[in-house]
Amino acid sequence: MSKTFKAVYIANLVDGQCSDNNIEVNNFSSLLKANKNSISFYSDTKLKEELINSKAGIVILKKSDAHLRSGPSIYVNDPYLAFAKASSLFADIKVLPFIHKNSFIDKDSIIGENLSLGPYSIIESNSRIAQNVSIGANTFIGKNVSIGCNSIIHSNVTIESNVVIGNGCEIFSGARIGTSGFGYAREKDGTWFKIPQVGTVIIGNNVDVGANTTIDRGAIEDTVIHDGVKIDNLVQIAHNCIIGENTIIAGCTGIAGSAIIGKNCMIGGAAMIKGHITIADDTIVSGGSGIGKSVKTSGKRFTNVFPYNIEHKEWVRIANNLKKIGKKND
Amino acid sequence: MSKTFKAVYIANLVDGQCSDNNIEVNNFSSLLKANKNSISFYSDTKLKEELINSKAGIVILKKSDAHLRSGPSIYVNDPYLAFAKASSLFADIKVLPFIHKNSFIDKDSIIGENLSLGPYSIIESNSRIAQNVSIGANTFIGKNVSIGCNSIIHSNVTIESNVVIGNGCEIFSGARIGTSGFGYAREKDGTWFKIPQVGTVIIGNNVDVGANTTIDRGAIEDTVIHDGVKIDNLVQIAHNCIIGENTIIAGCTGIAGSAIIGKNCMIGGAAMIKGHITIADDTIVSGGSGIGKSVKTSGKRFTNVFPYNIEHKEWVRIANNLKKIGKKND
Amino acid sequence: MSKTFKAVYIANLVDGQCSDNNIEVNNFSSLLKANKNSISFYSDTKLKEELINSKAGIVILKKSDAHLRSGPSIYVNDPYLAFAKASSLFADIKVLPFIHKNSFIDKDSIIGENLSLGPYSIIESNSRIAQNVSIGANTFIGKNVSIGCNSIIHSNVTIESNVVIGNGCEIFSGARIGTSGFGYAREKDGTWFKIPQVGTVIIGNNVDVGANTTIDRGAIEDTVIHDGVKIDNLVQIAHNCIIGENTIIAGCTGIAGSAIIGKNCMIGGAAMIKGHITIADDTIVSGGSGIGKSVKTSGKRFTNVFPYNIEHKEWVRIANNLKKIGKKND
Repeated sequence: MSKTFKAVYIANLVDGQCSDNNIEVNNFSSLLKANKNSISFYSDTKLKEELINSKAGIVILKKSDAHLRSGPSIYVNDPYLAFAKASSLFADIKVLPFIHKNSFIDKDSIIGENLSLGPYSIIESNSRIAQNVSIGANTFIGKNVSIGCNSIIHSNVTIESNVVIGNGCEIFSGARIGTSGFGYAREKDGTWFKIPQVGTVIIGNNVDVGANTTIDRGAIEDTVIHDGVKIDNLVQIAHNCIIGENTIIAGCTGIAGSAIIGKNCMIGGAAMIKGHITIADDTIVSGGSGIGKSVKTSGKRFTNVFPYNIEHKEWVRIANNLKKIGKKND
Repeated sequence: MSKTFKAVYIANLVDGQCSDNNIEVNNFSSLLKANKNSISFYSDTKLKEELINSKAGIVILKKSDAHLRSGPSIYVNDPYLAFAKASSLFADIKVLPFIHKNSFIDKDSIIGENLSLGPYSIIESNSRIAQNVSIGANTFIGKNVSIGCNSIIHSNVTIESNVVIGNGCEIFSGARIGTSGFGYAREKDGTWFKIPQVGTVIIGNNVDVGANTTIDRGAIEDTVIHDGVKIDNLVQIAHNCIIGENTIIAGCTGIAGSAIIGKNCMIGGAAMIKGHITIADDTIVSGGSGIGKSVKTSGKRFTNVFPYNIEHKEWVRIANNLKKIGKKND
Repeated sequence: MSKTFKAVYIANLVDGQCSDNNIEVNNFSSLLKANKNSISFYSDTKLKEELINSKAGIVILKKSDAHLRSGPSIYVNDPYLAFAKASSLFADIKVLPFIHKNSFIDKDSIIGENLSLGPYSIIESNSRIAQNVSIGANTFIGKNVSIGCNSIIHSNVTIESNVVIGNGCEIFSGARIGTSGFGYAREKDGTWFKIPQVGTVIIGNNVDVGANTTIDRGAIEDTVIHDGVKIDNLVQIAHNCIIGENTIIAGCTGIAGSAIIGKNCMIGGAAMIKGHITIADDTIVSGGSGIGKSVKTSGKRFTNVFPYNIEHKEWVRIANNLKKIGKKND
């Protein structure tokens, strides 16, 4: 983090108003650890003391909090978003394109300019990799895959055959995209007969897929992840799911087959979404909660985990009483 | 999908009855997207309109639904199973056996005929790979592993030493089989002493293991997955579990150590099974539900997730009242 | 397991008292499968019959259980811990250091003595690997990583840039350490702007990280895993979490961002810990339970999963009644 920026430059970038145009910073930091060369931000009222005592060269905050800060400031409507953009100035370290000699590209694939390809990674036949794509180490790109420009695929990733990934996506280490859907029909003798899974996975632009997350290919039709969707680590998205634009899904969530999730939904961590249901736009699912039926009205929030902690003994009492509720002699 | 089959051939395959022996199809499809060269199926009554309007060349359905379909049909008892088998005719694309030059096979391992081995994959010493096995890219097969004939191991998989995998298995990308069990004894100073995990994992025939699923080796004795078990993505099976024949386990489920699960059980997604318990044959566990005690009677279904959605505010009210139930002044 | 040890040697190791100094054993086993050359242990009262009938050459047990055993014994306070140590004598097979020719070490990294490095593994630039480190196959070690002495990194692992791993750690196959945190600010048009994640992950000494577990790097400051922490498979630890010394976390657990967990906590499998909360030392979280608020008093146990199984029909009745509790006309 050695680049230096003037406050006025940052203020323009974040659509903010500057109390001191010429002060310069060369790093970003929390309020507590900031020094005179740092830019920091304030939006969480729990950090009021830290704001007052911060040594940050510049703090991004709301105009309405200006009285809490004596030093140079940038005033914005959304300090968190503005800080995200400001800090990106320092964090953006672009790797030079480089194809490692110990990697494998099938001669029948088409590779755009400025590809980076790490050691022991593979691009199989008939794939199309657009320009400025970066692929880490030990990553497998199957046959007939398409990856759009400026996308980043990290290390130890698997992209199975026929998968389409748009522009500006980031696929984190250990993600598996396009693995077979989990579909079986039962034989009379109790064994399971695998349903062919010949659909694929279509991922739009600016989609992030977290570490060790799995997205299965569709059975007949495709699994579809629309533009701007952000998916955290260890999420399971089963075959034929459709996830709408800009929906965000936190870690450890499981979405069963053929679930259709609307746009701009926020799915908390470890949520469980039943298969074959439809969830309206702008739905919020609290962390750990299950959605067992379709949600038809948009903009609602659903929860079924306890908002308080329950001590073990107390829970045993509650659970034993739960058994009885609604019984005639209750 | 360029192969063509006559209706009579398919009807014989699926033990069905044909309304027009000679019509031919060359692909399979949903009712909605089918064309005159497609075979499709009808079993979900929600799709009645799609059946009536379908352009499919052949539809597989129950005899009792024959009045809903004017075009060529194949009548069967279980349309879903029959369609699975029919569609497999078109989907079955066999890869030619090929050992990539950038792969590593230890000279002390025994390799059967027709092995496929992808780039940057490894077979360590004293392993025995039967005929017609296919192994993807970036996959690690440890020492003294045994893999039965016709099994498929996909990419970025880890099979640790001494693991036994039967015939006709399919292990999907990122699965980890035979990693160390999670067993520790506590020292007086609060640190944890690792219990040696010297058992292994024994997997029967026709077992599927999903993407990024983990199956730990046993501590002293083995973890055992019996014939015909199907395991979805991101499932954790801890050390010394035994999973009975033809049991099917959906994604994100966790099964704690030494749990013994019977035959023909159906475990829904994100279920949680406690350790050291025994679950009878034919048990059904609903998705997201926990099993905290042994199940002694076979054929029962268990649930403890809500069958309806609960809006956040309503849940806060319910949860606050739950605290009070059974209290004296309730 | 071909080494032979005298009872007196083992008794000294485990701080125990020997009934027969000179008897020798060369393997360890369960009570049931033991032979006259086996050492076994007894601590679970359910195994009383197996103890009485065991053919084990030596059994480790409590002095108070001596009357149940006629053959040679070692008496200790904690038979499980003692057996763990005794069995380690037989299980400890040290691999000879070996750097596979098909691996890649950047010339700007510093490598200690006795490194083992498996095929198709990578150590990128400016990393520091201490002595006696073992790294499996297909593993990626990024730039500027530090790994302490005697640590073991298994196969198909990803260690991203700048991560610090202490001495004596074991990172199991498929773990992802230092992947990007999941932090976004929202633009006015509904799209998500990624917050730079420039912290790293700092792992202390003697930490175990399970198969396919993910630990994200911090946003500004670091994610920290203190000495002696043991983490099972498929656990998600989000950015900026801090996990205290000797805390143990079972499989499938999710810990959201910036959660601070104390020392010596025991977190059961599939638990869910909310972000931005603090959990006191010595807290126990039962498997499958959620912690939604900070825990201020140490030494408590929390549960909110049912301690009994609930049949589906019974649950539907309970769940429907739950809706009504606390309503006026209830």
